[in-house]
Amino acid sequence: MSAPDVAALEAIVGAGNVLQGDLYGLRNPGYTRENLAAGLLVRPGNTAEVSALLRYLYRAGIPIVPHGGLTGLVLGAVSKPGDVIVNLERMNRIERVDPVDRVLVAEAGVTLETAQRASEEHHLMVPVDIAARGSATLGGNVATNAGGQRVMRYGMTRDMILGLEVVLPDGEVLCMMSGLVKNNAGYDLKQLFIGSEGTLGIVTRVVMRLHEAPARVATALAACQSFEQIPPLLRHASQHLGGKLTSFEMLDPKYYATTARLSFIAAPIAPAHGSYAILEASGAESDDVDADLEATLATALDEGLILDAVTAKSEAERQAIWTIRENSEPIERLTPACWSYDISLPLSRFAEYLAVVQSTLASIDPEPDFYYFGHVADGNLHLMVGSQASDEDMHRRIEEIVYTPLKTLGGSASAEHGIGLERRHLLNVCRSEGEIALMRRVKSILDPKGLMNAGKVLG
Amino acid sequence: MSAPDVAALEAIVGAGNVLQGDLYGLRNPGYTRENLAAGLLVRPGNTAEVSALLRYLYRAGIPIVPHGGLTGLVLGAVSKPGDVIVNLERMNRIERVDPVDRVLVAEAGVTLETAQRASEEHHLMVPVDIAARGSATLGGNVATNAGGQRVMRYGMTRDMILGLEVVLPDGEVLCMMSGLVKNNAGYDLKQLFIGSEGTLGIVTRVVMRLHEAPARVATALAACQSFEQIPPLLRHASQHLGGKLTSFEMLDPKYYATTARLSFIAAPIAPAHGSYAILEASGAESDDVDADLEATLATALDEGLILDAVTAKSEAERQAIWTIRENSEPIERLTPACWSYDISLPLSRFAEYLAVVQSTLASIDPEPDFYYFGHVADGNLHLMVGSQASDEDMHRRIEEIVYTPLKTLGGSASAEHGIGLERRHLLNVCRSEGEIALMRRVKSILDPKGLMNAGKVLG
Repeated sequence: MSAPDVAALEAIVGAGNVLQGDLYGLRNPGYTRENLAAGLLVRPGNTAEVSALLRYLYRAGIPIVPHGGLTGLVLGAVSKPGDVIVNLERMNRIERVDPVDRVLVAEAGVTLETAQRASEEHHLMVPVDIAARGSATLGGNVATNAGGQRVMRYGMTRDMILGLEVVLPDGEVLCMMSGLVKNNAGYDLKQLFIGSEGTLGIVTRVVMRLHEAPARVATALAACQSFEQIPPLLRHASQHLGGKLTSFEMLDPKYYATTARLSFIAAPIAPAHGSYAILEASGAESDDVDADLEATLATALDEGLILDAVTAKSEAERQAIWTIRENSEPIERLTPACWSYDISLPLSRFAEYLAVVQSTLASIDPEPDFYYFGHVADGNLHLMVGSQASDEDMHRRIEEIVYTPLKTLGGSASAEHGIGLERRHLLNVCRSEGEIALMRRVKSILDPKGLMNAGKVLG
Repeated sequence: MSAPDVAALEAIVGAGNVLQGDLYGLRNPGYTRENLAAGLLVRPGNTAEVSALLRYLYRAGIPIVPHGGLTGLVLGAVSKPGDVIVNLERMNRIERVDPVDRVLVAEAGVTLETAQRASEEHHLMVPVDIAARGSATLGGNVATNAGGQRVMRYGMTRDMILGLEVVLPDGEVLCMMSGLVKNNAGYDLKQLFIGSEGTLGIVTRVVMRLHEAPARVATALAACQSFEQIPPLLRHASQHLGGKLTSFEMLDPKYYATTARLSFIAAPIAPAHGSYAILEASGAESDDVDADLEATLATALDEGLILDAVTAKSEAERQAIWTIRENSEPIERLTPACWSYDISLPLSRFAEYLAVVQSTLASIDPEPDFYYFGHVADGNLHLMVGSQASDEDMHRRIEEIVYTPLKTLGGSASAEHGIGLERRHLLNVCRSEGEIALMRRVKSILDPKGLMNAGKVLG
């Protein structure tokens, strides 16, 4: 970076907020000193500074990489020498939580967890929740349209965003902060930026819709004879619990047994069945969600949908069930290599998909370890494949096995995690040529020089 | 229209589907023989025909006006001599209702009511519901991002659309029919077309997310001392009923008394209070929604939020309550002129807004009749102003009174109904200059010749 460029950026954000050298160390998985190399890292303190920064960088033709909490899983934040990273960690102010309008207005650098806590003070809830809540920022959640465990009831981040402020690549501040649930006045432009992974502009402020925090939660683990019972069990639970069913997660027996063992948790049901489901019901003070959930499971047992079930009798038991679902990370260390995938499919095609993937994986010698689990109510499966061979050839073979069936089954190679840099070659699995061409045209009107998070999503 | 043009269009859709002359008569309110004048009306039978039509018309430079059920309220479907109307009434096939994936796949000319009935056969529900359901089409619902009575629980049409097929102005078929809840692979382009009022392309097919049909519904009417109690009553009901609260509507006392009288319904509560609310709770088979709703109202009474309440004891009583809410149309005939508005605001600003509007209307001589009611949980108010003077000057004065406060209070001049032709001058009330400029750029890449529903929304 030239000295005049550095001086110009320092004039905008202050000398202490223009950093050079080893920017992050190695604290974020997936990121390395190499792939976070950059000319500079700048930390603007407000929207006006972001605007001035982008105006300068865009005129100078310097590539820009926006950074939230660096918790993305598809290398959407990697940078190269010569790039300028715009890190929003200083823009971490919650402007207000309004208990009448039930909205949270905040700067984009606020972490999801901070937003959740501020909402809880008013007995309100940010419905989006992901494991990385402590570091992930609201701006990053918007940029990646984050999902999580409660999507089936409350939707993706897209469904919670009532307003956005975005600084466009050329520095223009686009204010769409109305915060209205209904505003059918012209095109809903904020939708363009949600899930665009920082390639169309930098989200600087958000208006998030809040929901009433549930007063009661009941959690159960159920065992089924096979995956075949999972879709009718979901339907059964949806019909019996209505809007009180807030989570429905599936675990294959191998995943269930393995994460329980690696988490030092005694499996609440013997790991001898064909499929497992976690059901969570949430309700208001007057709802007896425990009784409702138990009644739902009792009829499911009568109808042969499940073979066994346990309900959590304490918060510790509830946490144990969720730990079995969420603690996937130790699995990665069981084999020399382990690759994770995040696909989605119509639920009606899951069984077909799993059969194909399982049988083709079984043809590899030595047979890889295959785990599958996830948000089946949203048609979202997380897959993990552990292999004794860690070479690039094995990686490619497994990837092909996981992704190839998606095209004919109408699936997506990225349900929640986005495309970033890592999955660009998969965009055409889940998008038509016409769609990709139109994405490029949209990109071209907002970022004609191609400087904004260059190379991500569209390549 | 030239003879070769007519012949070319007849070759695409068949001679019987190219109509000239008096196209609709006067059956649709707001539309007249004059504002539905057109060179031709064509009725394509499938997507390939829509594509071929648009390809021809676009090359020939002939303006195109798409027509759904003509139930829009902002003159979004008006046409001029020389335009070609593309009417989708023949594309009325439901392709499938999938009870596992809980989606409906249909052509855009299917009416909302037909889609609702097909879903009900599987105990599923199309959550969007509007009074015009019998004529309004799914394509029109998408084009206008229709709202209705259940938005507070299920969202707008946008929140139910999992897939779209759109024919772009130049005839290209853009297939975005994945139907996946989660597909974070690139920009979510279908969002662009939802709510674009036919100005960016013609929606030809949709994938709609269905929800479980509630097994039980309970409805109540409550009276409050004044509007001041409405926001805390909403919060109270949301906290007590959670996801079971599916409708919360407000009626001002004058509207309540007048529609009851004009509907020949004995007001269930004397029309002597300051504000009225309709609460509806829906639940699963196991939910005692009647008891839940009554308990909610009992505590609201204890806390002074309401003064009186009645719950519907039969479907007839329930219908009576909803008729009082919905039967606004006879009010239009009470005065020589009556104008209707559809605005939205943060709920916290409603009282301030209503006070300003009421006091300025009171300064007009003779004082106009003012009614307000609507979906307060979504921040959406419908206003009606009846006047003894029906001239354009009075129309303008009243419009100014209704719309002017919105800008400072952060409201929208069109919550549900769209912009169409009628409200183009109001776009800048609820959108920034930057937003409007970007809308024009989006329009320019999809419709560079400006032929698609020309003049609507952006002018």
